[in-house]
Amino acid sequence: MAKPVIILVEPQLAENIGMVARAMANFGLSELRIVAPRDGWPRKGAHSAASGAVHVLEGAKLYDTVPEAIADLNFVFATTARERGQMKRVFGPDAAMQEARERIGEGQGVGIMFGRERTGLENDEISLADAIITFPVDPKFSSLNLAQAVLLVSYEWHKLEADGALPFSGERRSPPAEREAIISFFDYLEAELDAVNFYPEDKKPIMARNMRDMFHRLEMTEQDVRTLRGAVRALAEGRRLRKP
Amino acid sequence: MAKPVIILVEPQLAENIGMVARAMANFGLSELRIVAPRDGWPRKGAHSAASGAVHVLEGAKLYDTVPEAIADLNFVFATTARERGQMKRVFGPDAAMQEARERIGEGQGVGIMFGRERTGLENDEISLADAIITFPVDPKFSSLNLAQAVLLVSYEWHKLEADGALPFSGERRSPPAEREAIISFFDYLEAELDAVNFYPEDKKPIMARNMRDMFHRLEMTEQDVRTLRGAVRALAEGRRLRKP
Repeated sequence: MAKPVIILVEPQLAENIGMVARAMANFGLSELRIVAPRDGWPRKGAHSAASGAVHVLEGAKLYDTVPEAIADLNFVFATTARERGQMKRVFGPDAAMQEARERIGEGQGVGIMFGRERTGLENDEISLADAIITFPVDPKFSSLNLAQAVLLVSYEWHKLEADGALPFSGERRSPPAEREAIISFFDYLEAELDAVNFYPEDKKPIMARNMRDMFHRLEMTEQDVRTLRGAVRALAEGRRLRKP
Repeated sequence: MAKPVIILVEPQLAENIGMVARAMANFGLSELRIVAPRDGWPRKGAHSAASGAVHVLEGAKLYDTVPEAIADLNFVFATTARERGQMKRVFGPDAAMQEARERIGEGQGVGIMFGRERTGLENDEISLADAIITFPVDPKFSSLNLAQAVLLVSYEWHKLEADGALPFSGERRSPPAEREAIISFFDYLEAELDAVNFYPEDKKPIMARNMRDMFHRLEMTEQDVRTLRGAVRALAEGRRLRKP
């Protein structure tokens, strides 16, 4: 399936272009367009900052103007940190990527423009866009680094595309223990505790139940039960061995 | 309301610590803890990379070990890019911040540990955490920059805390035009088009309806109507003026 195109308008620092490529690659985006980079292109410093995302940098297309860079697209977002007095729909990155996904699903080409590090996009550039993306930042400290802004959009895109799938899930590799193993562990533990007079007079039933509740909260696997049983045995027999 | 604590374990580069401070400030986090930074602390380079988030850097607390850095917390997340074979719950940044918000709402102290740039957290450090955070990256390019990882967690926190509020909304400042103004514009436009024989024989009703539909899609404000009316007048009268 097609994906959003990232368009950098007059980026100033090669390092930032490289970090943008890395952020895109982290979330599966690959089409980068660069409009009139201040110091030319390609540039030293971009590759090292991309730390491996060279396929994005080497596939990057260079343009002289914004109209050329967006000519083949059907829908364009402009990112901006502040109100520009233009009557456009304003999206957060999550809602914007939902909109992008629907349009891309219909075969539309969707691009997202990011402005210069210091000054952002000019109003005339924003006027070429269909809608605005801004970020839910703390108003007291709203200046996002260029690569960070690209990262948030790429992240929200991939969250939708991968349906939130994580690289690993942390499922237990061992199934929950069968009740028989757990009950036998309880019997063994309580017998050993009895043997050292752990339970005060008349208190064994309630104390045993409370301890069983505690161990149930562990949702023990077979391996957990083996491990705990071994630990109890070691304590009990170690004690016996220490005895004269 | 209290917020999550960001804990950097043996960060290597001062620039990354500064960028972490900036990412935290962007989303309203301020409590930074640093465990045994490789090259000591404070460090040149951090302040410039923080580009203004000095309150976070200057408030940062330094620790010798992870146990000291998390001693006063009730719940700790460890961030990791790969499966570590530890039976812990694994969260994405969004679900993790929901969990954090509930716990903080109950008065718990919640921290998030981030490891070294190259090697991440050690398994023994992860074993001190209650749960794991990992990021929904592209498995083919999963290495997130340290500040980028902190940014995503901070962003998801602030999205919940601010309930997705954006710094500006882009609502129209002028109300939608009253129907009377719109109908009068249609009448004027159609009269001017009639005057130059725009409509082929018998086609006026259907063509007029289609053009009205088109203009309705603009959801015109009073100002929009005034602007369009003026443009039509300029075209019509300019034409008349050009006539001999």
